[in-house]
Amino acid sequence: MRELRVELEERSYPIYIGEGLLNETGAMFEKHGITAKSPVLIISDENTAGLYLRRVEDALKQKGYRTASYSVPAGEQSKTLALLQDAVTVALEAGLDRSSTVIALGGGVVGDLAGFVAATYMRGIRFVQIPTTILAHDSSVGGKVAVNHPLAKNIIGAFHQPDFVLYDIDTLKTLPIREVRAGLSEVIKHGLIWNEDFAYWCEANASKLLALDSEALIYALYEGCKVKSIVVSQDERENDLRAILNLGHTIGHALEAVAGYGELLHGEAIAIGMIGAARISVKMGQPQDVLTVTERIFNAFGLRTAIPAHLDTDSIMSAMMHDKKFKEGTMVFILPKAIGKVEIHKDVPISLVKETVDFLKQEG
Amino acid sequence: MRELRVELEERSYPIYIGEGLLNETGAMFEKHGITAKSPVLIISDENTAGLYLRRVEDALKQKGYRTASYSVPAGEQSKTLALLQDAVTVALEAGLDRSSTVIALGGGVVGDLAGFVAATYMRGIRFVQIPTTILAHDSSVGGKVAVNHPLAKNIIGAFHQPDFVLYDIDTLKTLPIREVRAGLSEVIKHGLIWNEDFAYWCEANASKLLALDSEALIYALYEGCKVKSIVVSQDERENDLRAILNLGHTIGHALEAVAGYGELLHGEAIAIGMIGAARISVKMGQPQDVLTVTERIFNAFGLRTAIPAHLDTDSIMSAMMHDKKFKEGTMVFILPKAIGKVEIHKDVPISLVKETVDFLKQEG
Repeated sequence: MRELRVELEERSYPIYIGEGLLNETGAMFEKHGITAKSPVLIISDENTAGLYLRRVEDALKQKGYRTASYSVPAGEQSKTLALLQDAVTVALEAGLDRSSTVIALGGGVVGDLAGFVAATYMRGIRFVQIPTTILAHDSSVGGKVAVNHPLAKNIIGAFHQPDFVLYDIDTLKTLPIREVRAGLSEVIKHGLIWNEDFAYWCEANASKLLALDSEALIYALYEGCKVKSIVVSQDERENDLRAILNLGHTIGHALEAVAGYGELLHGEAIAIGMIGAARISVKMGQPQDVLTVTERIFNAFGLRTAIPAHLDTDSIMSAMMHDKKFKEGTMVFILPKAIGKVEIHKDVPISLVKETVDFLKQEG
Repeated sequence: MRELRVELEERSYPIYIGEGLLNETGAMFEKHGITAKSPVLIISDENTAGLYLRRVEDALKQKGYRTASYSVPAGEQSKTLALLQDAVTVALEAGLDRSSTVIALGGGVVGDLAGFVAATYMRGIRFVQIPTTILAHDSSVGGKVAVNHPLAKNIIGAFHQPDFVLYDIDTLKTLPIREVRAGLSEVIKHGLIWNEDFAYWCEANASKLLALDSEALIYALYEGCKVKSIVVSQDERENDLRAILNLGHTIGHALEAVAGYGELLHGEAIAIGMIGAARISVKMGQPQDVLTVTERIFNAFGLRTAIPAHLDTDSIMSAMMHDKKFKEGTMVFILPKAIGKVEIHKDVPISLVKETVDFLKQEG
């Protein structure tokens, strides 16, 4: 087991990454001084509940904790205020009090919903994350929690840091390969924005990671979480630096929106977005290598580097404009200046972005 | 105009109390460095909107601020997640961004709802309170914001401090006398828990306060806010000391619940609750004066000191038990040990509480 500490002053917390950790849930609660007098609410989705809920409940019960559980349908459509209210009904009926804890057992959707329940129930109670996807390594660092509004994603939320994160890589072994690949895209991103050595390590270890080799996976999740944690420690409330975590996301979000959520997984969309950012960067004067190496890394993982040809360029551009990162003919972009280094550019010509989108479609 | 600073480290903020302040809203926004580039959302209820919305909008527009507004039906039933979502719809349509501000224009209900919108919109934006009731002097200090759940009041919320509070006492002049009286009950409470001189000053100035004499009112609101601000500064997240603010609330909440919200205003219910606490205190050995003086003060304001005789004692007791401040035959109570001093007692016999409730009913 490896342990990484996210440094946020009095809100600092550890991330434990290893095998067989679900069975240690109760022991970890004790280690963190969580009282067994107050009940624990486990929030999961219907997939993760079926696979892991019983094991987490048993591990808690062995140490004398009482539990209640609430599970939502899998998928983004479960991040609503209506389901938040339902979760609070369960919490009240189970007698959760101010010393209680909410556990998020699942991927990013469950983490966002459960985290917002923990942030707001009785104005904030303890929160523990048990991520069950690779992508969730990203959302398990930084404390951003939220639900969606019919008009906008993640618009109602809070910053609420967990007490600890328990990352049992055994849970990743039930993931479909497409989700593994897409999740690794966000791990690679952390290399590309901050850690050149780690980016090259990912390329060299692509096949091990895709085969879910335990040692490689623990190392990769540790390094990925570490980059995010360094960035978040310096800018918890997203005032400036934290924006670099959005490498690939401007084009990526637009592709997700135009393709309809589902055709492209988030990790797949941002992989293409990172290729786009590298191409723009080269056009604006950075060495050709930035693009060549970025492409090589994503190719090693079998992640597509081109935009599906049937997506309409104008729709993609207009989805990007909607993202509000533009001003008078230019847009804000996070651009690589080398492998492992990025910069925030406020003056990327919209014409260059459009040209890049068109080019990436021809590749598709 | 008087100014009081609530000390909460980097979340400290001023409360301005005076006459004619609504017209200064725009100037105060400028003084606090709030950008005119981002729109402002004013949340009010249908009463306060009719009386004051236009004036606040005009004051903001004169200084170049764009505004949107959202108003809810007056009353506790407006503190719901559904209306939070509606408010966010208005915020999104008006283009509120991370530099925007939400104004609460109204009493405690509007403050709680608008504050929770500000706490959660884009994970937290600026918040300005413009209280229009006397009772709201209490909720304008301390940053507690929340909505209700069908099973419990104020159970979904946050701590979110305002940028500043603009307390225009001219708005109090449209309040019905019953609300003035009930609001002053919470002002008196602040004297009883912390400031003997101020408690006696309230008694001596009861008729001026009931007549809404400006000078007396500004002084009383200033001193009331000051007590609350001292307590909150020492215990922002309600870990211990902040509980003393609940003097009179254990019995008071039970009376509100059993009477049905509406028969007794909050301030009326806690006045009776404070009499009850004083009586329990005397029975447990404190000097008789504690009760005599407390009764005298509330009498000076024409606040009733007895429980309406038709309310059922068992129902009141069971509503109190539901409040969860009890353990094995005893209850937790905030009790006065002198005028201006209270203590938290964890061992008040339930039998003594019941006896006190019965006695207060016979008085009615």
